[in-house]
Amino acid sequence: MQRNVRAHVTLLMKVFAMSNSTRMSVAVCKHVSRIRGTPPKRNFTHTHHSSCTLTEPLTKTCQLDGVRKIIMTNQKTRNALSLQMMEDLISNITLNQDDPALRCIVLYGEGKVFSAGHNLKELTTNEGTEYHNQVFSTCTRLMLGIMQCPVPVVAVVEGLAAAAGCQLVATCDIAICTENSSFSTPGANFGIFCSTPGIAVCRAVPRKVAAQMLFTGLPLTAHEALQAGLISKIVTRENLDEEVQKVVDAICHKSRSVMELGKKFLYEQLEMDIITAYRDGQEIMVNNLSMVDCQEGIRSFIEKRQPVWTHGFEKCH
Amino acid sequence: MQRNVRAHVTLLMKVFAMSNSTRMSVAVCKHVSRIRGTPPKRNFTHTHHSSCTLTEPLTKTCQLDGVRKIIMTNQKTRNALSLQMMEDLISNITLNQDDPALRCIVLYGEGKVFSAGHNLKELTTNEGTEYHNQVFSTCTRLMLGIMQCPVPVVAVVEGLAAAAGCQLVATCDIAICTENSSFSTPGANFGIFCSTPGIAVCRAVPRKVAAQMLFTGLPLTAHEALQAGLISKIVTRENLDEEVQKVVDAICHKSRSVMELGKKFLYEQLEMDIITAYRDGQEIMVNNLSMVDCQEGIRSFIEKRQPVWTHGFEKCH
Amino acid sequence: MQRNVRAHVTLLMKVFAMSNSTRMSVAVCKHVSRIRGTPPKRNFTHTHHSSCTLTEPLTKTCQLDGVRKIIMTNQKTRNALSLQMMEDLISNITLNQDDPALRCIVLYGEGKVFSAGHNLKELTTNEGTEYHNQVFSTCTRLMLGIMQCPVPVVAVVEGLAAAAGCQLVATCDIAICTENSSFSTPGANFGIFCSTPGIAVCRAVPRKVAAQMLFTGLPLTAHEALQAGLISKIVTRENLDEEVQKVVDAICHKSRSVMELGKKFLYEQLEMDIITAYRDGQEIMVNNLSMVDCQEGIRSFIEKRQPVWTHGFEKCH
Repeated sequence: MQRNVRAHVTLLMKVFAMSNSTRMSVAVCKHVSRIRGTPPKRNFTHTHHSSCTLTEPLTKTCQLDGVRKIIMTNQKTRNALSLQMMEDLISNITLNQDDPALRCIVLYGEGKVFSAGHNLKELTTNEGTEYHNQVFSTCTRLMLGIMQCPVPVVAVVEGLAAAAGCQLVATCDIAICTENSSFSTPGANFGIFCSTPGIAVCRAVPRKVAAQMLFTGLPLTAHEALQAGLISKIVTRENLDEEVQKVVDAICHKSRSVMELGKKFLYEQLEMDIITAYRDGQEIMVNNLSMVDCQEGIRSFIEKRQPVWTHGFEKCH
Repeated sequence: MQRNVRAHVTLLMKVFAMSNSTRMSVAVCKHVSRIRGTPPKRNFTHTHHSSCTLTEPLTKTCQLDGVRKIIMTNQKTRNALSLQMMEDLISNITLNQDDPALRCIVLYGEGKVFSAGHNLKELTTNEGTEYHNQVFSTCTRLMLGIMQCPVPVVAVVEGLAAAAGCQLVATCDIAICTENSSFSTPGANFGIFCSTPGIAVCRAVPRKVAAQMLFTGLPLTAHEALQAGLISKIVTRENLDEEVQKVVDAICHKSRSVMELGKKFLYEQLEMDIITAYRDGQEIMVNNLSMVDCQEGIRSFIEKRQPVWTHGFEKCH
Repeated sequence: MQRNVRAHVTLLMKVFAMSNSTRMSVAVCKHVSRIRGTPPKRNFTHTHHSSCTLTEPLTKTCQLDGVRKIIMTNQKTRNALSLQMMEDLISNITLNQDDPALRCIVLYGEGKVFSAGHNLKELTTNEGTEYHNQVFSTCTRLMLGIMQCPVPVVAVVEGLAAAAGCQLVATCDIAICTENSSFSTPGANFGIFCSTPGIAVCRAVPRKVAAQMLFTGLPLTAHEALQAGLISKIVTRENLDEEVQKVVDAICHKSRSVMELGKKFLYEQLEMDIITAYRDGQEIMVNNLSMVDCQEGIRSFIEKRQPVWTHGFEKCH
């Protein structure tokens, strides 16, 4: 623990490699402060959107050493994916996402609930069909936005992820959770079958696991979620930051452009028959080999040294 | 145990909410009687089909509190999925399935074998190609009938599920089994590769698990089946009824029409690319929100009370 | 152990049922000799290809009792899937593969690494785009060749399977590994995202497992690989031969033609929607029933005796 504290202080002393942005303020990321035994302080400079200057910000964001942390901070709604929350997440994910300085996004939920899903109050007939259409098309934009994001998006779950909150976890490229976490799609309890969460969940876990979640609304424990493939790794709360850092380091150690090319094709080939996938995959591999960063990677391996990436798509001549 | 007995007696004392049917007789469901330490009594009034009045009935069926139990009772053939057995199952599943009183179907196999699959005696050349065509088209009708059934179908397995019997388990929406259960697709041992069982099994478990089952014919234990996703839950024989009841209660607690809408889209979207799935899914969600039962569900949540469902598809004005 | 030694000696004393081949020499398969506590002797007669008579052979192959063992023996490159290694594997897999005497192929990697994947030295710009195209089209031919092989292909992994080596494991019909094995797709560390390995891995394991492997490059342990479905079974090194033999025996006990028909349809139906799969599957089943070997299998079951297969596709009259 003592070592963690020192590492943390060192981290804070580094110069922030913030992406240059008019919309994202410089923020001191205190998310990990609980490792010092104190509750997180609320001295963040929050993200402000021109469209919501009168409302309380729902997320806080900071970027350090290529890693953008996006934290849902609306504990009073259990981080409900209200229209505004989804727009905030989309903004925070897409903002300057083509900046080479950005290498990985990590998504947190503050408090005991990662996210409880859509805000039921937005789903009453009072809001009207047009509003409902907007809610679900925004939700789709968020989910596809994560898949189309050029850098890996990692969900870190400490607590409950329910309904569209579970969809969010299922959609992220990688998901790490603490042992006390749980995952459910209980919408039918309230008359809304989790049809869109089911799209992401069914593509992440065996269909009987998905069906049981959707038809009963009963939660998976963290261990059941790991077994089903919904979660990449379970860690103790104590080891959480360390394990997240390992994953983030492994990602940041690589060339951004190579990862971008790989992520794009990964989700494309999942939808292809295997013959088409291999036909397109061969081409992707040969293109990958022609990149400067690839040839640098191979040389560094042969020469037994660390690679020096450009993080760009330049080709060798 | 004492508590279980009392609960069971209470259950039997309730008035049966039988669906009105000319083909399904009122039946006292004694399946759970073994919890009292006595063997099941054979005093069922069996299902009779006009087409098979001269043959022994192969299933028994009862419906109570929205739950239809269908029990395969042909122990001497190890609940073989003979043409007649499959027709019986189809009849019992489809009978009055649009009756709002029906909310869940639970499928059991009496004896040590849930089902041993097709009846090999029906598959000899003596029967002829036309008969074989009929066997397999009926099998397809049974499997698709389970997926298209408007209410969830739960398999409860106590023992072996083999070949088409394993296909049946893989096809049900939810499957619960006891620890001593096992699952196999051993057809190739007898010269019939389990090609159609493989269709359901491959869609339920990782492909290497399916391939090992199909190529070796060796069984999965209950724990291997759970790990692979073929089974939703393993329970001890002692806790079986209680656990089945939990799942059934979770299903019956919800609006039938919401579940029907959700189940239909679940199996549709599994076959779609993700973009199409989300496009259609948004529409499904917005339609779901316009249902009376959905708005009642949301109100009940906000008002912290139990919802009162219509179980219908009426829309809000 | 004593029993194993005796079984092994008996095995060696049997007459080899070698396929008649001008390219594959008679070879004494000593792979299992380590069970006697001695290192494998290098007295194999290696496979020689007319196209590579000047290079050291990269594999050794033997066939006994219907089982063809193909062993990658290029430890100094950690069994790299060089162009030549892939061509060797393709030759060894396709050679006389329609010979009824061949019933199963088992693929080993000699040494601590099953296979480390493509040979990075072949992927530099020195080799040129045309060569790279050849490498990846050959890799596709190898992978599809395993899926299209008329007999099951079993991978036996003792150690690391990385990148295209992991793809090879993911592609084999069945995979058995020892407890110390590990599996990774670390290409992005060297600037080459494992896009084509990802095609096989994504179809074998849940997508979050695949994504974590591809984006971090971190390995799965044997137990994680089993949990994810990448591996069919984990065994101790001591029990490896016995367990492989069980799987091989289960395969060889069946009719070759029935297995061929089943394997072909298995990979076809995986790409179909479920309605089409069942429509085609019914036809496959009825055709299967018309085969002499199928009717023999059914009769042998009814008559409680061992079946006598023709291993051919002859139909009943």
